[in-house]
Amino acid sequence: MADEAKPVAIEADAVPPSPPGRGYPEPFASRVAGRVRRPLGDVFGLTHFGVNLTRLPPGGMSALRHTHRSEDEFVYILEGNPILATNEGETALRSGMCAGFKAGSGNAHHLINRTESEVVYLEIGDRAAGDTVIYPDDDLGRALAPDGSRMFVHRDGRPY
Amino acid sequence: MADEAKPVAIEADAVPPSPPGRGYPEPFASRVAGRVRRPLGDVFGLTHFGVNLTRLPPGGMSALRHTHRSEDEFVYILEGNPILATNEGETALRSGMCAGFKAGSGNAHHLINRTESEVVYLEIGDRAAGDTVIYPDDDLGRALAPDGSRMFVHRDGRPY
Repeated sequence: MADEAKPVAIEADAVPPSPPGRGYPEPFASRVAGRVRRPLGDVFGLTHFGVNLTRLPPGGMSALRHTHRSEDEFVYILEGNPILATNEGETALRSGMCAGFKAGSGNAHHLINRTESEVVYLEIGDRAAGDTVIYPDDDLGRALAPDGSRMFVHRDGRPY
Repeated sequence: MADEAKPVAIEADAVPPSPPGRGYPEPFASRVAGRVRRPLGDVFGLTHFGVNLTRLPPGGMSALRHTHRSEDEFVYILEGNPILATNEGETALRSGMCAGFKAGSGNAHHLINRTESEVVYLEIGDRAAGDTVIYPDDDLGRALAPDGSRMFVHRDGRPY
């Protein structure tokens, strides 16, 4: 998008969602079905960090429980009452609460919506080079291919 | 703060505000009087980007109108109706709207609260090394000292 085509400001809910097909291989992709992520920072050409406005339907989850080696992450709850699951157990969140996850901390986390209402939150992550991801509850990891691209692998290193 | 002392999640409004005295030299500091910034990311030890929950009283402003050379910035409006002033002029914002400012774009910006109600927003900025700041409306710039520390200077380069 050319610089002159970028808006000054936008309604966050008007940003087109990311395509749902990207991301995990099956059977993991189905577990985040219904999650809708709107990439807000991309609209303005931001590259140093990403900001998503994300909606979880009842029964939805933000991601598989995971921890990044190289990227900081942060979430701020706008609506609803998700559960934050971390290495410490479960914590009930509500609108106006936030949580942060330091790169390399090893504290694997995700949000789960066990309510009958939608959960809406902002999620921010930087885009550190060379990031890999650990999913301690699943036979999954996100590795770096020799060319630097991201690849999903089994625990034993075999690619999906 | 030791790792084990960090909370899993927090009420954003319960985070202690940053000290108001830091930042601009006078007469500029007085122009952002009343602005209250809560550094949310710091609570969790994040270092790749900062997240502030910021409140502007009636008549307040987010900052002098400015643009960063090296840092991306993003704001998301939670409450109230600020004016976003940029190189393009003025845009009225409301809850659920957002704006982003790419590093080096030269698009100087700030939020102004001309209403009788408080404005509340999240502001995110990364922490790129070597950042400098231009304030096109004021006799002010933020430069890098030889030791890498940040220093405020006049337009002609004299330090404040």
